Amino acid sequence: MSKVINFSAGPAMLPPEVLRQAADEMSDWHGTGQSVMEMSHRGKHYMAIHATAERDLRGLLAIPDDYAVLFLQGGASLQFSVLPMNLIGRRSGAADYVTTGDWSKKALREARRYGQAREAASSEGTGFDRIPSPGDWQLNPDSGYVHICSNETIGGVEFNWIPDTKDVPLIADMSSNILSRPIDIRRFGALYAGAQKNIGPAGLVIVIIRRDLLGHTLPGTPPILDYAALAEHDSMINTPPTYSVYIAGLVFQWLLDQGGVATMEDRNIAKAKLLYDCIDASSLYRNRIAPEDRSRMNVPFQLADPGLDERFLAGAEALGMVQLKGHRTAGGMRASIYNAMPIEGVQTLVDYMCEFERKA
Amino acid sequence: MSKVINFSAGPAMLPPEVLRQAADEMSDWHGTGQSVMEMSHRGKHYMAIHATAERDLRGLLAIPDDYAVLFLQGGASLQFSVLPMNLIGRRSGAADYVTTGDWSKKALREARRYGQAREAASSEGTGFDRIPSPGDWQLNPDSGYVHICSNETIGGVEFNWIPDTKDVPLIADMSSNILSRPIDIRRFGALYAGAQKNIGPAGLVIVIIRRDLLGHTLPGTPPILDYAALAEHDSMINTPPTYSVYIAGLVFQWLLDQGGVATMEDRNIAKAKLLYDCIDASSLYRNRIAPEDRSRMNVPFQLADPGLDERFLAGAEALGMVQLKGHRTAGGMRASIYNAMPIEGVQTLVDYMCEFERKA
Repeated sequence: MSKVINFSAGPAMLPPEVLRQAADEMSDWHGTGQSVMEMSHRGKHYMAIHATAERDLRGLLAIPDDYAVLFLQGGASLQFSVLPMNLIGRRSGAADYVTTGDWSKKALREARRYGQAREAASSEGTGFDRIPSPGDWQLNPDSGYVHICSNETIGGVEFNWIPDTKDVPLIADMSSNILSRPIDIRRFGALYAGAQKNIGPAGLVIVIIRRDLLGHTLPGTPPILDYAALAEHDSMINTPPTYSVYIAGLVFQWLLDQGGVATMEDRNIAKAKLLYDCIDASSLYRNRIAPEDRSRMNVPFQLADPGLDERFLAGAEALGMVQLKGHRTAGGMRASIYNAMPIEGVQTLVDYMCEFERKA
Repeated sequence: MSKVINFSAGPAMLPPEVLRQAADEMSDWHGTGQSVMEMSHRGKHYMAIHATAERDLRGLLAIPDDYAVLFLQGGASLQFSVLPMNLIGRRSGAADYVTTGDWSKKALREARRYGQAREAASSEGTGFDRIPSPGDWQLNPDSGYVHICSNETIGGVEFNWIPDTKDVPLIADMSSNILSRPIDIRRFGALYAGAQKNIGPAGLVIVIIRRDLLGHTLPGTPPILDYAALAEHDSMINTPPTYSVYIAGLVFQWLLDQGGVATMEDRNIAKAKLLYDCIDASSLYRNRIAPEDRSRMNVPFQLADPGLDERFLAGAEALGMVQLKGHRTAGGMRASIYNAMPIEGVQTLVDYMCEFERKA
């Protein structure tokens, strides 16, 4: 590989085919004489790009027609506020949050500004090393929604099952595992995802929401953050992040070319197994997450002797492997292996880990 | 020209040199083996890109150190809300707005959700054909700020002078004329600009604010929309729109290479004069804006016989000139001629207009 092997948690690797096509089309998209960046968002060329991106995303995730798809800005972190602004008022002014790591904890904290956001369950007591057992969740049948983060990038904990929240809509922050496996959208009231892991460039966030949940926005919410208004105007109340939507569309096309999200799931299972098997067989490396809740996307691991961390990272970088350092709050290592990471990249890492352990 | 001549009001033309460099660097930025889109926003490569973009913008506009520069998301339209959330509470809970067209009117409407936003002056009575005379402005010395839109893209009205608001900070939406001329930043408390006209891709918005105005955010404002928190974290509370910041940085470098904003002003004066002179000398075309308040960036014009509009547009398109149709609320034509529009593009338009009139 002439490219580096980039284990960044996000922004993250993109398929090389997507980058090549973007480069080829940069100054002249499809013979229009314009870059996508230069196109009026109300013009026929961009409108076609936008519609195709939405159509392909709907196809990839089998999104039913009674769900709106919104292409927004501000990242998932802004949605931590925008989501309760739009949904916490729909019934009792309350919502249930399940805390499984740093991101779901932040989502809960922001929601508390807008209503009675309750922590229905948490694994903080055991250092966010698992998904709390569903039998222990304190769900309230009068809640507006139940919120989960389907994959925690820092801790490396993933929901490998979909909770049953009965008549209360389930809402998931899927920023870091959307499109990594098939999901049954009907099991969710809404989901949202920042683009910079499995979709495209930072600065785009996608919201998928069942239309009957729209229309309960809290007073004082700017129209530009009102899901109902956004759905009505096809995400174009103001200028959308057009180039980011275009790149996302190229990624969606690439996913379709690969065989869709079922193919990605097979590859992601194989990649994760390769790495976790290496860790579990080793006495130098350790992953502390309950095996059934381990993330396929983000694999944190610690070296038995943290004094070896710097040497481990330097040796990896010498072989072209970058961004393996764990999150500053977690320490150790973290390998993020989203859709665009080829299995050869993980194999290179595993080979290096074995070799490093042998020499250590 | 093999490229079209793109008169879009935004997203708009970008310098061809910028697009070529972006294409060249798409898959491998400066030998890192990574696209800028793939870089961790906390990594050294992106941090350097971000810092260079800010440094060059500060250089171009001579922004003093006691002003913070923020790279944000959501467009200027989100700032219509975020600005009062951050500033209307700093003194009396009131602010003065000057209405000169559709955009400043929208800004006023949004501000009313957050405090006592007053219309200090308006030219709506004469169809937004001028800037209201400063002697007629009803400014209140206890206001938190005075808001103007320095250039109205739809009407084609521009402030060619800076109002004196005494001790009350002046705040300007400069989305469509930032970097088109030198400005004295010290005359402003803050300014903001969506990127998609004179800066770069849609999805980036820049806020420049005097630091002593920070810290008066209304309760309930998400931290991610709090200017003080954003300034403290260098716009990186969450992932910034990294690729858009990179493209903006390339545009800033291009502007420096051209000779800076003083050179751009000379060119923009020449381009606007060429087009307005053509309109004023004609009996077919008409621009209804008071001459001293005409925009250098957006030149709307009407044909004496609107029945000729379609033929005018078709003939222009046949010569590679696109997006000349006026805004749907204004009708007629509009030529947007931002920094990246070369004078040759305006000359081609003027030649066509003369020829069309001769044959009409």
